[in-house]
Amino acid sequence: MTKPTQRRRIERVRVATSRVIGRDTLAAEEPLEIRVDGEQFAVTMRTPGHDFDLVAGFLVSEGIAVGPDDIAAMRYCADDTPLAENTFNVIDAAIRGTGSVRAAARRRHVYTSSSCGICGLDSIEAVETATPYDLLADRITVGEEVISALPDRLRESQELFETTGGLHAAGIFSPDGTLEAVREDVGRHNAVDKVIGHAYSEGRLPLTGRILQVSGRASFELVQKAAMAGIPVLAAVSAPSSLAADMAERTGVTLVGFSRGATFNVYTHGDRIV
Amino acid sequence: MTKPTQRRRIERVRVATSRVIGRDTLAAEEPLEIRVDGEQFAVTMRTPGHDFDLVAGFLVSEGIAVGPDDIAAMRYCADDTPLAENTFNVIDAAIRGTGSVRAAARRRHVYTSSSCGICGLDSIEAVETATPYDLLADRITVGEEVISALPDRLRESQELFETTGGLHAAGIFSPDGTLEAVREDVGRHNAVDKVIGHAYSEGRLPLTGRILQVSGRASFELVQKAAMAGIPVLAAVSAPSSLAADMAERTGVTLVGFSRGATFNVYTHGDRIV
Repeated sequence: MTKPTQRRRIERVRVATSRVIGRDTLAAEEPLEIRVDGEQFAVTMRTPGHDFDLVAGFLVSEGIAVGPDDIAAMRYCADDTPLAENTFNVIDAAIRGTGSVRAAARRRHVYTSSSCGICGLDSIEAVETATPYDLLADRITVGEEVISALPDRLRESQELFETTGGLHAAGIFSPDGTLEAVREDVGRHNAVDKVIGHAYSEGRLPLTGRILQVSGRASFELVQKAAMAGIPVLAAVSAPSSLAADMAERTGVTLVGFSRGATFNVYTHGDRIV
Repeated sequence: MTKPTQRRRIERVRVATSRVIGRDTLAAEEPLEIRVDGEQFAVTMRTPGHDFDLVAGFLVSEGIAVGPDDIAAMRYCADDTPLAENTFNVIDAAIRGTGSVRAAARRRHVYTSSSCGICGLDSIEAVETATPYDLLADRITVGEEVISALPDRLRESQELFETTGGLHAAGIFSPDGTLEAVREDVGRHNAVDKVIGHAYSEGRLPLTGRILQVSGRASFELVQKAAMAGIPVLAAVSAPSSLAADMAERTGVTLVGFSRGATFNVYTHGDRIV
């Protein structure tokens, strides 16, 4: 099984001063093929580790896993290589009940990458109809000082970032700022899928009254994933896109951006921040 | 036609001090459907602007556009909406000669996102066989001081970053550090496609002896895109992934990471940095 990091020989250059051969730890990035009931559903580039969480969260984001029993089982499969060995890069999820119907409707050849969620021309509309939760009804309030403390708490909880300097993170926090779960990945959307999938596996969806803090930017897929998991507040360290703000407005997600210590911006549904 | 940025009403919070209603400029993010000879080929989430460059660069990365005449024409199409209006979010590329054959072979329903290139289980192998250029034969050398100056030069040339704080950039530089072209997008891979597509449209491929400087991380798709455009040196501000380093090693691309002023790391083919 592949480790989440890899050591490589590199040259460290200090301009006009030194050039030293050393070793560096890189975040691993490998393809993961997700199958639903034996058929290929998607391929994503991800950092190995917490793969079952990733698949569960992905299926939540796609609207296939809603109830806690929709995923009957997950297992690693042999690869489609001539040797048919198990590379731990293929996972099959057995879906139960109405989830199978939704999977058939959603099935398409989706190739995703390490920084990529699932989208498409219709997905903005799709998420609005598909979200099983009424986020506007979530009357959670969060203190300004809680929001401002989350980026540092997230960073401190990242096990792999310190060694690689190159991993995104997603954390689920309670309204008082307590970290409930954190996951890392080379891709932001994978980190979010992993942390949502973890909550799903523990039977904790919808994540009512919770805050999703992410490193990096807030793209529209992240708002989509938050809405599908019933998370009312999404906070990002960097900028949101226009589409992320549009979708947050419509789905009832409070969107915070540029969250950097003492200051942050609130783009939508600011009444939850007190 | 959508602008690359959008103004929105926001609340600026300074914790325990102030909470001001203001306006913020966000990077626009909209879907672009790419059609090849009238048939849907891919959908990507991108920042509007330089769309023809984006499509050309995407087709270069996919191995469909190789020679300067492979793309006969590009045009905006009416959307598949009930009103069939032109939203400037659908582009059809007419492909000539062998490019059509390659397009048919590559065709698949590819949904990409604003941080996503094209990948899939087979693409690592695919790019190695598909690259029409022998990068190992490119004997360019670049001074350490040139490499270290590129991130600042790239940032200074970003028109949209200052207003939005949330756009990636990709720049093509000559070996002496002269900026030849720069493009911005919410997605790193789109910025790279745009700058490569610009070079393609000017008949400048392969980009022998050139350096591609990108903001953010170096994922394996960016190495793939550099190789497909014949660019021998890829420099990133942040960390590369393990797969990016593997692919750079095999395709003959010099991969620089953590390029931050006086220091940077060289992961592969360091003999080009002098």
